[in-house]
Amino acid sequence: MNTIGRIFRVSIFGESHGEAIGCVIDGVKAGIKLSQDDFTADILRRKSGAKGTTPRIEADTPEILSGVYEGCTTGAPLAIIFRNGNTRSADYSQFRDVPRPGHADRTAALKWHDFNDPRGGGHFSGRLTLPIVAAGVVAKKMAGIDIHAELVEVGGVAKADATDGWKSILEQALRERDSLGGIVECRTGALPAGLGEPFFDSVESVISHAVFAIPGVRGIEFGDGFKAARMKGSEHNDPFCDPACGEATRKNGAGGVNGGITNGEPLVFRVAFKPTSSIGRPQQTWNFATGSLTELEVPGRHDACFALRTPVIVEAMTAIVLADLIRINA
Amino acid sequence: MNTIGRIFRVSIFGESHGEAIGCVIDGVKAGIKLSQDDFTADILRRKSGAKGTTPRIEADTPEILSGVYEGCTTGAPLAIIFRNGNTRSADYSQFRDVPRPGHADRTAALKWHDFNDPRGGGHFSGRLTLPIVAAGVVAKKMAGIDIHAELVEVGGVAKADATDGWKSILEQALRERDSLGGIVECRTGALPAGLGEPFFDSVESVISHAVFAIPGVRGIEFGDGFKAARMKGSEHNDPFCDPACGEATRKNGAGGVNGGITNGEPLVFRVAFKPTSSIGRPQQTWNFATGSLTELEVPGRHDACFALRTPVIVEAMTAIVLADLIRINA
Amino acid sequence: MNTIGRIFRVSIFGESHGEAIGCVIDGVKAGIKLSQDDFTADILRRKSGAKGTTPRIEADTPEILSGVYEGCTTGAPLAIIFRNGNTRSADYSQFRDVPRPGHADRTAALKWHDFNDPRGGGHFSGRLTLPIVAAGVVAKKMAGIDIHAELVEVGGVAKADATDGWKSILEQALRERDSLGGIVECRTGALPAGLGEPFFDSVESVISHAVFAIPGVRGIEFGDGFKAARMKGSEHNDPFCDPACGEATRKNGAGGVNGGITNGEPLVFRVAFKPTSSIGRPQQTWNFATGSLTELEVPGRHDACFALRTPVIVEAMTAIVLADLIRINA
Amino acid sequence: MNTIGRIFRVSIFGESHGEAIGCVIDGVKAGIKLSQDDFTADILRRKSGAKGTTPRIEADTPEILSGVYEGCTTGAPLAIIFRNGNTRSADYSQFRDVPRPGHADRTAALKWHDFNDPRGGGHFSGRLTLPIVAAGVVAKKMAGIDIHAELVEVGGVAKADATDGWKSILEQALRERDSLGGIVECRTGALPAGLGEPFFDSVESVISHAVFAIPGVRGIEFGDGFKAARMKGSEHNDPFCDPACGEATRKNGAGGVNGGITNGEPLVFRVAFKPTSSIGRPQQTWNFATGSLTELEVPGRHDACFALRTPVIVEAMTAIVLADLIRINA
Repeated sequence: MNTIGRIFRVSIFGESHGEAIGCVIDGVKAGIKLSQDDFTADILRRKSGAKGTTPRIEADTPEILSGVYEGCTTGAPLAIIFRNGNTRSADYSQFRDVPRPGHADRTAALKWHDFNDPRGGGHFSGRLTLPIVAAGVVAKKMAGIDIHAELVEVGGVAKADATDGWKSILEQALRERDSLGGIVECRTGALPAGLGEPFFDSVESVISHAVFAIPGVRGIEFGDGFKAARMKGSEHNDPFCDPACGEATRKNGAGGVNGGITNGEPLVFRVAFKPTSSIGRPQQTWNFATGSLTELEVPGRHDACFALRTPVIVEAMTAIVLADLIRINA
Repeated sequence: MNTIGRIFRVSIFGESHGEAIGCVIDGVKAGIKLSQDDFTADILRRKSGAKGTTPRIEADTPEILSGVYEGCTTGAPLAIIFRNGNTRSADYSQFRDVPRPGHADRTAALKWHDFNDPRGGGHFSGRLTLPIVAAGVVAKKMAGIDIHAELVEVGGVAKADATDGWKSILEQALRERDSLGGIVECRTGALPAGLGEPFFDSVESVISHAVFAIPGVRGIEFGDGFKAARMKGSEHNDPFCDPACGEATRKNGAGGVNGGITNGEPLVFRVAFKPTSSIGRPQQTWNFATGSLTELEVPGRHDACFALRTPVIVEAMTAIVLADLIRINA
Repeated sequence: MNTIGRIFRVSIFGESHGEAIGCVIDGVKAGIKLSQDDFTADILRRKSGAKGTTPRIEADTPEILSGVYEGCTTGAPLAIIFRNGNTRSADYSQFRDVPRPGHADRTAALKWHDFNDPRGGGHFSGRLTLPIVAAGVVAKKMAGIDIHAELVEVGGVAKADATDGWKSILEQALRERDSLGGIVECRTGALPAGLGEPFFDSVESVISHAVFAIPGVRGIEFGDGFKAARMKGSEHNDPFCDPACGEATRKNGAGGVNGGITNGEPLVFRVAFKPTSSIGRPQQTWNFATGSLTELEVPGRHDACFALRTPVIVEAMTAIVLADLIRINA
Repeated sequence: MNTIGRIFRVSIFGESHGEAIGCVIDGVKAGIKLSQDDFTADILRRKSGAKGTTPRIEADTPEILSGVYEGCTTGAPLAIIFRNGNTRSADYSQFRDVPRPGHADRTAALKWHDFNDPRGGGHFSGRLTLPIVAAGVVAKKMAGIDIHAELVEVGGVAKADATDGWKSILEQALRERDSLGGIVECRTGALPAGLGEPFFDSVESVISHAVFAIPGVRGIEFGDGFKAARMKGSEHNDPFCDPACGEATRKNGAGGVNGGITNGEPLVFRVAFKPTSSIGRPQQTWNFATGSLTELEVPGRHDACFALRTPVIVEAMTAIVLADLIRINA
């Protein structure tokens, strides 16, 4: 359901245009210093406003309702909420009958028999990644692992080739009222060896489970990834090396995991994000009220490339999983 | 841990050279016809013997210990075991000190403080996919959904280009005492709309969780997958179409899932398998006993491309997840 | 952790004197009518003010943050919070060093290494039963089962013998600055047959799990309960009878459950509550700061018999469990 | 379902007259010495043959299928099975139509739509407590806590008053072809303080959950138990005392738990077992085939008081829960 984790557990709730969104975090260690300020940096990284992202500005100020006393976590569940302010619900009323391609308008209505909140995508909104980022801040403190995610490709252009930080292709997409996808790479510092379980709770299993909870993810690969399927064993195989040299294997083509278990190397994986579904140009879709094909123009505010905002979300998910795995392995 | 599922649940146990391997399946509907014969076809598909797979022959006969009475499931947990017979444990004793690259020899020892069973990879052996296939047989009956997985690429050669069914490149790899990877594509029949949950239990989350439990998986992608990251919104977006025409969207670029929820289309995903780690040719690795670099020759029986055996395992995992999602959504 | 349920799931959070307490309810069916007013009756039943209960008055107004749209549940998680207002934290500062007998002051400090919020019992406060009652309101609507709990004994006096509704013994306890315990009996309407699982998730297992989450419970018994241990088989055994007569068994000495599974009869159980731990008269306890025996007078507002408030909490827990069992059995 | 525990997890399977019964134990620490002999003592304690217990003799020899290598646990799941031998299935065929009072014959058929295995109670048989006892043996080694359960009352006669070990009343019950119930008390050595969680996973919650999984339990009480409901606060309250004296509180009336969390005292609880349901004398019940009241004589082998066998089962359940709580709290 809306919960992830076995011992360190995160639940999220809320709708884009509802009263508030938030998370409950259970299994937090007692005695971690935590204040509102700790959330600012990551929330800003996720926040809208950058070139290619939507102009909707929310205050995005976390209210810590529980679990912190005199500046430290208490061990009891943390509840953090974000009030929704700057909403324009009128924009969304039409999508009941005419669902936006690529969005959950239609599946939400099917799943919940038309009782779903359609405003701004309701519970399915990307806005729900805000409490995930907040939970990630706590998880990063719990895990104590360096985690770094960044965009390595936008609209098919690799980072090295994007001399202007993808500025020109983003502007072009905006001009064409279209959108772009991207690829995020996440790398951690060296992990403790022995995390994860064989088979069903392999590290890749639990990381991918969390990462596919981010809206818009289309694929994930670890280490050499899909390229590994085109390598020979003699190329892909990764010799163990002198532990004294600070690395477990020579190339880390396995992305830090052998047999589902961390080997002491950094965890490395890449995530493919689709292009933003809401585009300015008209699209064909089905009008379920009239039973006819129709042309839809999605009004309002869109990211030309929402993948720009996702590295901090990928980091948060990684931290949430690692905090749990480390806690389980204690 | 070694269990997957919320209501329809599968646990596996056993070691490659131990007494027996098996699974316990809970949440099985009462009244499903089930006999030993039902397992034969899928077990044969997984079985060794094909060109490019290892000559180890096991009887692989399932013993149903519980949960079936007068030819039907009873509703109580099913326990199914497979005795291990044809084992050559002496082959594996050396890997304690000199772990095989790409295998779990080293991480298993780190995780379990050298108490792991090293024979044949112990609990980490690909042999444990046999009870997974058995559970898949039951899950397929529970789910009642058509599920079909097949190899679409071996060693970088697409199916359409492999006029001889990859025979020549497999033979070449065997001659070179090397190995190949592959890509498996899985497609289901049309699914009931509304399966899955927003965010943490999205269909992609639970499918990928299960699929990464298969040894040797390096990546997974749904629908347009990694290609989606290189498409424009106007290209990737997938118009809804007349439900009367039997399809939910025009291209199914989302692989059957919007916002984590099935939209009524077939589920479509691809899985990248690495090349077989055990190769005949000598490899460098670290000898942890002597503390020196060493050359290792992995003796015994190897698959040139274990991906050949995996489609039925991918199907089993898909069935296990779908049986659970359908059960949850009841 | 702080979550109960498999499909219908309730999590609680908050501290007695913190910003707010609340619950998140997942797995709620879409389309249930729900408004603030639905909570009033049960919240009032739990509320303080009655003879023998504490004079602390909280507004106890639920704020529904998510999961309801246009007066109906949406299918997405419900988050409900209650702001804390009328708190007197100064009362509690001393209990760090001098824990109150019968309270969690000491165990909370041990568990959370002195980072626990000590104000008003912090997260361990009976105030956390307020969001449980709120979740119970939703669960009752989900389950659609008649559930009725009531006090049947206070301070050792059975209901039938308490001609004045225990008024006199409660007043006496207040005069003596002492407190009383009580026994609550819970009965449901006829349940669907077949709920529960053999062994680990027997109906008694999941009901008792939930009921022992209520602070101050010392025991639970089903049907004939402890008396059954003193009956002969020929006395305790409960003949099945004509289903047409509307009852499954003749005496329901099993409390509605055979082999862990509901038999169609009403569920019947009794719960023993200890006397209120906070009493006005001085008590001996250990001063962990000075390392000496000390006399403690617990200041502030106490219930002479908090069991008076518990029937609605027992009902809530029962409803939460039944909503889940019915959902699982669908 | 048929699994208990969060990290240390036990699943059971099997039917009384099926091929085999058994358990899978996950989350076992690597490196625990374990052999078949370790199970003998506890299996004998549970075994039939004592005065007042059934003459059915099973070899009850555990086969360890996995998870042990060179005499030690490996960290991988343990699977242990017991073959069923000495069964007389013909005895049970009639109970489809004429369910035995007090048994699960009827509820099993209702739950599983008549596909349940009726032989010997099928999956609902008390025989399934054998793998629970086996899991308890492993759990005791994991927990490293002294756990002792014993009968304190049979047929209403307290241990102190039963000068002959209840021999005479048991013989009388056998002569009258009737049966007796009993009360088991379980005490542990001093537990680590801080185990358990506030509210939903209180120690009492998880212990009672496990204990009510034992067939025939009608009630459970901790510390002063139901008597606490008749005590005054000044009597029941339990002063903390000098930690140096080796005890946390003076009377341990809370049974070792405050606010759901262990306080360092021994855990103490009592369990009420009903009289054996199968009695030799004829009983009335309903014949669902003919739709008429009928007289049933249960043939075969019965315990006059199955509670005699239960202390080791109560210990096993306690050990299973404590092993998990200790593991979670690590």
